[in-house]
Amino acid sequence: MNIEINMEELKDLVKDKEFRKLKFLLERMNEADVAEFLEELPMQQSVLVFRMLPKSTASDVFAFLPVEIQKEIILAITDKELQTIVEDLYMDDVVDMLEELPASVVRRVLENATPETRKTINQFLNYPENSAGSIMTAEYISLKRGMTVSQSFDYIRAHGQDKETIYVLYVTDAERHLEGVVTVKDLLMHGYEVPIEELMDVNVISCVTTDDQEDAANLMKKYDLLSLAVVDTEDRLVGLITVDDAVDVMQQEATEDMEKMAAMLPSDRAYLKTSVFDTWKARIPWLMLLMISATFTGAIIDSFEDALAVCTVLTGFIPMLMDTGGNSGSQASVSVIRGLSLKEIEFDDLFRVIWKEIRVAVLCGVTLACVNFVKILLVDKMLMGREGITLVVDAVVCATLMLTIICAKCIGCILPMLADRLGFDPAVMASPFITTLVDAVSLLIYFQLASAALGF
Amino acid sequence: MNIEINMEELKDLVKDKEFRKLKFLLERMNEADVAEFLEELPMQQSVLVFRMLPKSTASDVFAFLPVEIQKEIILAITDKELQTIVEDLYMDDVVDMLEELPASVVRRVLENATPETRKTINQFLNYPENSAGSIMTAEYISLKRGMTVSQSFDYIRAHGQDKETIYVLYVTDAERHLEGVVTVKDLLMHGYEVPIEELMDVNVISCVTTDDQEDAANLMKKYDLLSLAVVDTEDRLVGLITVDDAVDVMQQEATEDMEKMAAMLPSDRAYLKTSVFDTWKARIPWLMLLMISATFTGAIIDSFEDALAVCTVLTGFIPMLMDTGGNSGSQASVSVIRGLSLKEIEFDDLFRVIWKEIRVAVLCGVTLACVNFVKILLVDKMLMGREGITLVVDAVVCATLMLTIICAKCIGCILPMLADRLGFDPAVMASPFITTLVDAVSLLIYFQLASAALGF
Repeated sequence: MNIEINMEELKDLVKDKEFRKLKFLLERMNEADVAEFLEELPMQQSVLVFRMLPKSTASDVFAFLPVEIQKEIILAITDKELQTIVEDLYMDDVVDMLEELPASVVRRVLENATPETRKTINQFLNYPENSAGSIMTAEYISLKRGMTVSQSFDYIRAHGQDKETIYVLYVTDAERHLEGVVTVKDLLMHGYEVPIEELMDVNVISCVTTDDQEDAANLMKKYDLLSLAVVDTEDRLVGLITVDDAVDVMQQEATEDMEKMAAMLPSDRAYLKTSVFDTWKARIPWLMLLMISATFTGAIIDSFEDALAVCTVLTGFIPMLMDTGGNSGSQASVSVIRGLSLKEIEFDDLFRVIWKEIRVAVLCGVTLACVNFVKILLVDKMLMGREGITLVVDAVVCATLMLTIICAKCIGCILPMLADRLGFDPAVMASPFITTLVDAVSLLIYFQLASAALGF
Repeated sequence: MNIEINMEELKDLVKDKEFRKLKFLLERMNEADVAEFLEELPMQQSVLVFRMLPKSTASDVFAFLPVEIQKEIILAITDKELQTIVEDLYMDDVVDMLEELPASVVRRVLENATPETRKTINQFLNYPENSAGSIMTAEYISLKRGMTVSQSFDYIRAHGQDKETIYVLYVTDAERHLEGVVTVKDLLMHGYEVPIEELMDVNVISCVTTDDQEDAANLMKKYDLLSLAVVDTEDRLVGLITVDDAVDVMQQEATEDMEKMAAMLPSDRAYLKTSVFDTWKARIPWLMLLMISATFTGAIIDSFEDALAVCTVLTGFIPMLMDTGGNSGSQASVSVIRGLSLKEIEFDDLFRVIWKEIRVAVLCGVTLACVNFVKILLVDKMLMGREGITLVVDAVVCATLMLTIICAKCIGCILPMLADRLGFDPAVMASPFITTLVDAVSLLIYFQLASAALGF
């Protein structure tokens, strides 16, 4: 039987100091929901309510909390409470947290860890940010090839309690080299006396601690894995990545790509949790750079100032040409950037991609140019009565449109692939950057064609 | 021991007709890799190689293949081979495939299914596209509350073989109403005689068949679930969603959002696998619409034609103002769209979001206006010697810049939230749409300020 409680009712209980009732309800809620509730409370109260939680769920709730609240809790609780939490948490959650905390708080956490935990934490903290090592968990079960199914179950029963996942079991030799992998399903589908050597899959998919976390997550997606083995440079098993962490990585990388595509520096906080100043810091660099680089488009227009003064109607089409060029370019760049990040496209495909974009660009260019030619005559000239529109002007605009689209799509697909090849993130080559470039290109084409056709 | 084989070596084996060697290697490869190899081959050959695969792996490989190859295989194999595959596949994979196949091929598949499978398939095909029902699997294990751990294991051993996941077990009553959930880990961590009633969690997270698949996937991410129960409108268990399918949904939704943000209709195919014509079809509607709506910006410029002819220097700043406005707007819209899709923002937050964007906009606007004021004097006027730049012109440009940024950020955050509220996808309100609107706004501000300050 489920009970529906809403946040407001819980908040009222805090306000009315009905702590026994609150405690009763919290104990019956899912840990993720308790964490969400704590996030909604003022900091002081959320620490207070956290300390009401039974020991058994406190650590689970703690793992779901954002780092600012974790920090306040660490500062508020006793050493004994902190010890329990640190030992209860999975290593990857501890490490995630420590990477974000100020040094003084990190010291307090490390002081309250057992020497063994401290050693593991320090080892984990040395893995580069965004590497497979930094998101792996050290709590896994490894079996020996000589065990039977029945012995494996006994081993899991004895050692599985504090492991993050027990469904994928790695078989290692005495030096911890990976020899195979077997799932609990395999064990359950075979007789108790079968040696796991006969069941295990020797073709283990694994990654190295220094691999990029995004590559590790893609590997798990490709092979539909629940967990991925992580080995060190000497091919010894050191940990595993669970699917829920891989999911977080994928979401985070997708968000970062979107932010970069929209000319922002990536942030790892939720929108409403980022301060105004931090949001400004993430947005201003690209705005500034792009604004300054627009000096070039200004200079191009200036150098054709006299022509524009003679044939004023040309100015009115500049926004349309620039926007259509920008949109065409970002369509190509976003397709390519996403393809690169999902590993559907590699640098070797460069010429296939360019060839495809050219054909799409010609199709789009011809369609838009034809429609625009008719639209300018019917709507702009006849309906709105804009002056100075001649067939030649119309032809110049539409020819510019077509050439701009072709250039835009080529720039849009080439730049991200080059960036990727050179080791930069292709996502920064997205729409805004390409728009600025395409603006200049489209204006140059426009004025060259206009000069030639109208004879300035 | 792992062997490294590359695609080219495998292709050479096909070319040299070394089928025995090829078969030997294919049998030892991961099914996902075999599927990738088949995709690389010409259609004829890939069907030929598929038929070489041992029965036991053929269905697994089949599930990884894109639908075009699945179709050719279905048309090429015998009824008996087809029967084996249809019965071996998980229901959600069959349904995914049937949704994409032409009617004649669907008929052939249904004819070769057992009556029972056919009934389930038809039931699944009736769930709306992108609903939880359409991605769930019907192959799950449900237990009764009276069973002990030991009886549960016996039940899993007897019925688990053809189930997609056996790690999450749902406890139901005689009418299939959900009563609780228990994991294999819970079973393994307790004595064989414990009744599962004592172990099960009665607080089961579930969704309804008609829920949006994205909501289901978000639920799984929030609670770190390996599988999510799917119930019908009468709260009876009908299936479950596995985490690998949820991962696919999340990736697919992120890709779709990016495509929509870049003014494309979403496609569910990989970039290089989409034909030029299909890519054109996905890209042309928005390009066309945005091109035509640029008529307004043209009209605005035209109506200030005389002013521009008098003060030609104003024209040169139009691209910079439009682009900076567009970039500012898309920064806000992409932040908000992503926040909405990850459920970090709701419509109730509208005023918090607007208030935040206004503050960020003022910060960004002041910074950019100041830098630009100095830049125009130093670079444009003194260094490049552009004529007609006066302090008043400079002030008009920078004031426009600031006001444009504030308008752009407000439009950028309000439109996606309104779209979401009205039941539209907020992602279509992204950069290109907002750019077009912001273009018009920035030009209006520009010319109004210029008229007032320069007295046209």
